[in-house]
Amino acid sequence: MKFSLKHTDHKSKARAGLVETDHGQIETPIFMPVGTQATVKTQSPRDLYELNAQIILGNTYHLYMRPGQELISSFGGIHKFMNWERPVLTDSGGFQVYSLKELRKIDENGVRFQSHLDGSYHTFTPQSVLETQWHIGSDIMMVLDECPSHDATFEYVEKSNELTLKWARIQRDLYEKGSSLHGYDQWLFAIVQGGTFERLREISAKELVNMDFPGYAVGGLAVGESKDKMYHTTDFCTDILPQEKPRYLMGVGTPQDLLEGVERGIDMFDCVMPTRNARNGTVFTWQGKVIIKAGRFKESKEPISENCGCYTCKNFSRAYIRHLLNTNEIFGIWLTTHHNLHFYLELMREMRKQILADNFTRWKKEILKKVND
Amino acid sequence: MKFSLKHTDHKSKARAGLVETDHGQIETPIFMPVGTQATVKTQSPRDLYELNAQIILGNTYHLYMRPGQELISSFGGIHKFMNWERPVLTDSGGFQVYSLKELRKIDENGVRFQSHLDGSYHTFTPQSVLETQWHIGSDIMMVLDECPSHDATFEYVEKSNELTLKWARIQRDLYEKGSSLHGYDQWLFAIVQGGTFERLREISAKELVNMDFPGYAVGGLAVGESKDKMYHTTDFCTDILPQEKPRYLMGVGTPQDLLEGVERGIDMFDCVMPTRNARNGTVFTWQGKVIIKAGRFKESKEPISENCGCYTCKNFSRAYIRHLLNTNEIFGIWLTTHHNLHFYLELMREMRKQILADNFTRWKKEILKKVND
Repeated sequence: MKFSLKHTDHKSKARAGLVETDHGQIETPIFMPVGTQATVKTQSPRDLYELNAQIILGNTYHLYMRPGQELISSFGGIHKFMNWERPVLTDSGGFQVYSLKELRKIDENGVRFQSHLDGSYHTFTPQSVLETQWHIGSDIMMVLDECPSHDATFEYVEKSNELTLKWARIQRDLYEKGSSLHGYDQWLFAIVQGGTFERLREISAKELVNMDFPGYAVGGLAVGESKDKMYHTTDFCTDILPQEKPRYLMGVGTPQDLLEGVERGIDMFDCVMPTRNARNGTVFTWQGKVIIKAGRFKESKEPISENCGCYTCKNFSRAYIRHLLNTNEIFGIWLTTHHNLHFYLELMREMRKQILADNFTRWKKEILKKVND
Repeated sequence: MKFSLKHTDHKSKARAGLVETDHGQIETPIFMPVGTQATVKTQSPRDLYELNAQIILGNTYHLYMRPGQELISSFGGIHKFMNWERPVLTDSGGFQVYSLKELRKIDENGVRFQSHLDGSYHTFTPQSVLETQWHIGSDIMMVLDECPSHDATFEYVEKSNELTLKWARIQRDLYEKGSSLHGYDQWLFAIVQGGTFERLREISAKELVNMDFPGYAVGGLAVGESKDKMYHTTDFCTDILPQEKPRYLMGVGTPQDLLEGVERGIDMFDCVMPTRNARNGTVFTWQGKVIIKAGRFKESKEPISENCGCYTCKNFSRAYIRHLLNTNEIFGIWLTTHHNLHFYLELMREMRKQILADNFTRWKKEILKKVND
């Protein structure tokens, strides 16, 4: 696997790059549709190919629970299990485990938790989570980390940071000794933590860079802090992270967040927003968000978005989509999901184009006025 | 519009025919996927084209309620509203209204009922239901009839029959004077009623034949009576119905029912079974029904059905589909729905082939042993 930087914008930190994996190339900056349970909700693999999705996300916690790592491994990895030929990144599941709150207990060896499904007890350790991801066979694996809540104290985050760094070291060493099970390369990305404390982010980023991971994520953001703090922390981290490695801003975000993130030197994003909002009837357009169930679209023969090239917009009216959503028809949320993913992917493609044309900063300013949420 | 009989089996009443409409041809015998609310649940129009569905069903009651006939009419009819270019048949909605039981009151002019959605009062008359279907713009419209319950007395069904015949006459006359609104032909089919009473079925069928409708449905079956009675009544009705008109057995049925229906001279079928069962995780195969959630498929790398040519079977394992159903992922029911519709449509195509080859009776006997439910 390989990452090459193709171009950096002259007026910002925005970068265009290329990740090469054994399952194909990823042109960055990229948005990764979320496929938590080995499916991007409502969309088939061919739907995703049509959208030209270049990489999708899976979730280690959810896949460990169901269908289990052994089953996926027996298929030769998640690609064959779900019939998706392109790259997959798996989140470590740490975030999901910490979200369980009352159901989990953390110590220096790992985290013990109760399943959200049946209350059964499980333990994730740095070792086990890497092992699980080798079985799942994701092209990009994420380290198990601790993700403190956005209102955690400096003291708490400082201690948490130390644990995350300790675990990162364990996983880096194991990763270097180990090897993938399914005949293709897998990368391990580290996750920079430290809340919104510059001092702690600095320690985290520098230590992880010293450990020399193939790629770096900025984690622990978009968890309740202000937008300003999120953007500032991202900016702060990418100043420390090496130019020649891909950078991934986890769980982010709105179209504006993607624009701001790219401007601050981020290459990869994932977020449930386009798929989750689609199921609630909210669609994204170059003119901003639209509530498609709104009464004013009752008779609208227009597509969701003029000039949009997706199957939804080329073939269906707002009135029809509104009807499907109002009658709880599944095809309605397929249509909105397909459109929203198209919009997110198109937004990233356009960003890449603008970066390569050295026009990102000017273009971004114009676009922000319209898509602003 | 035109119906031509291509061949009748030498040893049974099974027929192969061709219906020509302004939205394309329908090769009979045919199964019509149910798209109650202007969408065949989970499937896009292009999914249905891929399955080579030749005609789909809509429901006048549901479409009248939501989104309303005016909206569909403003699009130029249901085809443009839902972006489906092939033929559509609409049930009159009578069956749905009678299912409301406590919420409806019937008299000789029509039926007054309360919406299942908001309790608002509405009236369907023979005139209004035809009007609604002109607005909807289905290629084949169905008369408003009364569908007595399967345990109704002879006296009740006799009286009901008279009403259904009276309404049929009103609608036939209106139909002959009226014309479609959207620039293409629409047919009106009559519905033979009479419960399981031969005498009443005979009256109903003969009277309706005298009224000279473009096509005839056998209604009021598959409502709780025994299979024997259903098959016998179907047989009895098709003996009376004219050879040169298409015949439609409403709301039927299982694979066996389709085979028995075709053998008794039926050309058209509709049923929610393939789509509804798919959502419950039951799939149809040439070896019978399969509960795909069953534990024995936990690790199965096989498709639902060997040699099945559908997208589901060509690309996905039982274990993956089972995982999706167990995790309530929508793509799981898309996959099972797609497969089940493929099976139903393929079953009909195979029947047509066997009829044309004069091998239907022998073939049916063999097939019944396997698909028997």
